[in-house]
Amino acid sequence: MRWTLPSDRVPEAWFNVVPHLPGPLRPPLHPATREPIGPDDLAPLFPMALIGQEMTADPWVDIPGEVLDVLKLWRPTPLVRAERLEQALRTPARIYYKDESVSPAGSHKPNTAVPQAFYNRSEGVKRLTTETGAGQWGSALGFATSLFDMECKVYMVRASFEQKPYRRVMMEVWGADVEPSPVDDPTHPGSLGSAISDAVRDAAGREDSHYSLGSVLNHVLLHQTVIGLEAKEQLRDAGEERPDLVIGCCGGGSNLGGLALPFVGDPDVAMLAVEPSSCPTLTAGRLDYDFGDTAGMTPLLSMYTLGHEFIPPPIHAGGLRYHGDAPIISNLVEHGRMQAVAYPQGKVFDAAVQFARTQGTIPAPETAHAIRAVIDEALAAKERSEEKVILFGYSGHGLLDLGAYDDYLHGRLADS
Amino acid sequence: MRWTLPSDRVPEAWFNVVPHLPGPLRPPLHPATREPIGPDDLAPLFPMALIGQEMTADPWVDIPGEVLDVLKLWRPTPLVRAERLEQALRTPARIYYKDESVSPAGSHKPNTAVPQAFYNRSEGVKRLTTETGAGQWGSALGFATSLFDMECKVYMVRASFEQKPYRRVMMEVWGADVEPSPVDDPTHPGSLGSAISDAVRDAAGREDSHYSLGSVLNHVLLHQTVIGLEAKEQLRDAGEERPDLVIGCCGGGSNLGGLALPFVGDPDVAMLAVEPSSCPTLTAGRLDYDFGDTAGMTPLLSMYTLGHEFIPPPIHAGGLRYHGDAPIISNLVEHGRMQAVAYPQGKVFDAAVQFARTQGTIPAPETAHAIRAVIDEALAAKERSEEKVILFGYSGHGLLDLGAYDDYLHGRLADS
Repeated sequence: MRWTLPSDRVPEAWFNVVPHLPGPLRPPLHPATREPIGPDDLAPLFPMALIGQEMTADPWVDIPGEVLDVLKLWRPTPLVRAERLEQALRTPARIYYKDESVSPAGSHKPNTAVPQAFYNRSEGVKRLTTETGAGQWGSALGFATSLFDMECKVYMVRASFEQKPYRRVMMEVWGADVEPSPVDDPTHPGSLGSAISDAVRDAAGREDSHYSLGSVLNHVLLHQTVIGLEAKEQLRDAGEERPDLVIGCCGGGSNLGGLALPFVGDPDVAMLAVEPSSCPTLTAGRLDYDFGDTAGMTPLLSMYTLGHEFIPPPIHAGGLRYHGDAPIISNLVEHGRMQAVAYPQGKVFDAAVQFARTQGTIPAPETAHAIRAVIDEALAAKERSEEKVILFGYSGHGLLDLGAYDDYLHGRLADS
Repeated sequence: MRWTLPSDRVPEAWFNVVPHLPGPLRPPLHPATREPIGPDDLAPLFPMALIGQEMTADPWVDIPGEVLDVLKLWRPTPLVRAERLEQALRTPARIYYKDESVSPAGSHKPNTAVPQAFYNRSEGVKRLTTETGAGQWGSALGFATSLFDMECKVYMVRASFEQKPYRRVMMEVWGADVEPSPVDDPTHPGSLGSAISDAVRDAAGREDSHYSLGSVLNHVLLHQTVIGLEAKEQLRDAGEERPDLVIGCCGGGSNLGGLALPFVGDPDVAMLAVEPSSCPTLTAGRLDYDFGDTAGMTPLLSMYTLGHEFIPPPIHAGGLRYHGDAPIISNLVEHGRMQAVAYPQGKVFDAAVQFARTQGTIPAPETAHAIRAVIDEALAAKERSEEKVILFGYSGHGLLDLGAYDDYLHGRLADS
């Protein structure tokens, strides 16, 4: 069963979790002075509207009409009950997922790419720069800028640029200019850190350009709350009072936050972050101030981190290969409001293939982390004969990750 | 704007156009005797339920509950108004499309793969064989058989098998066994004809196996009518009495037929088939009895054909590279109830990119043929200041065809 909503029921305001957090959110610090930063420190890179959203304590933030018009191209997204998976597991749990893979870019990322493009253009910015690893975020921003007649420059980790041309082509279809990073060393395979440095340097050096980030920051998680707000309404349509457990994969935290944050105020809703064993920020990192990038150019953020120089192994879930977590997610974990679990990628792909053979659709490797945890929770509920309601985030499809499935099916997957 | 329908409004019966055709449908002939074939001639390859549907004159055919349960994984599909494209064209036309790309396999093909798998399994068949070119049909059948616990053997044209591994991987994720064709000559690049021969020979030689075809036949078009039936209802929800023009790309004819056939009885609805200039069956073929396959093993069908030995150039719209057309589509064109137009692929990709940069989503090369014609019709309506209502079939997404876009964007596309 699927629960859809008409176009006119896209939420008209974003939910700001900050006033509802279990503890105060520590402010970002200036990388040189280690003092809390102010709006002016961010102005060279971001428009004032987004800086305001980054720092606001307002409980709701209105979504502009022009942003809504674009979100309605694919929103509201469906809420699906995974009945065939339930039957295969013989679990009494009821499993629902919010399907963000239906966006033009194939993931939840456009939910923030669109307002970021809009606010920049409203303040006269004609060009955005960003970095991308495997390409999910770069393609979302390429899509969004194409609709607002803006230029988009994407610095793509060179190894991905060369090995995964399809995401690069996708960005080019939308008109983005994609360049391998690092730009100054054509023999270097690159890293997310080098690409961030290239993108920030570009934006800081041009009057007409700003920089755009696809996760971690407060305003990014704010924009993603349309996911959870719609899911709440759709769960009611499905006859459920609330989910007992919300599960999402967690890289920077925007997918998980988008789904889970609107449920923070309900103490009966448990929350679980799922991460790769090879990049176990929440399960094995330390809570500390750290840089957002490898090069140490960004403000210091209070977060669970493996250290900004940590380079995760090249697992297929590129979107989960980040050394830290959003300060908001870190806050929830610090105070026990959210739990975390880590899985090796072999077990993750077992779950992905089981999902594809029961529900039909092929999930992104990132999304498959959530599915692994969902299956384990559903089997635990079966042990306890518990009619648990599980809601998880289907953050993206795996149609541009089929090479990873090829490795898995033919015994070439490193079980890291 | 998008019009969705709840899961319980998937049509419960298929629409049979045969009683409504403008002229009698000529029967298929036995390849040896050239006499009309009977059910027994088809029994080695197809289950009796499908043979019955192939020959029925009943106006409606009930959809079994187990089929509906699977279709509801992604149906009803959305009807979308392409407002941003209308604005870019400054046309008074209202453009709607039925989005079949949301199925797990990414096209309309599962609409028939699912009932074909179901009826075979109901009659005790445990294994299906088929051919596939670029892989759309093979992946749809792989998906369908996985849900009914059947084996699936796909003979894939060797050139595609080697050059386009992603569709092969997709089939394998669902558990299908994919083998390059021709099986007896590993140096041969293969063709759809050789693959059909391999698949038919396999099915005919095994007790547990049947053969499955993804287009052309009456029962395939019958299964696809859920598209048009839903679209009719959604257009009413959108406040439209009827479309003035229905447009679909046409290879074998199942996508176009699925959308258009439920409108055949309304003389105010015009219909347009769009095909590639390089495989111009309806615009330059002759109406004749011809074989469905290159090897001449199938019954003879009455259709527009370029001759069963015609080998189209390797354009990217693999699904439109077929030498003939469904007898039902041919009947409509023969009697003037449907028109046809052909485009070269350069103009088709111009339209595809314009669509992606206005509506966001990246269409399959096949689908882009329909979009090319839609844009031209919308511009013609602008010349005449005509508020025309155009409905077209968005038959599939282009996410596994990004190599074609790469060729187009970088000047490597043959404009054939």
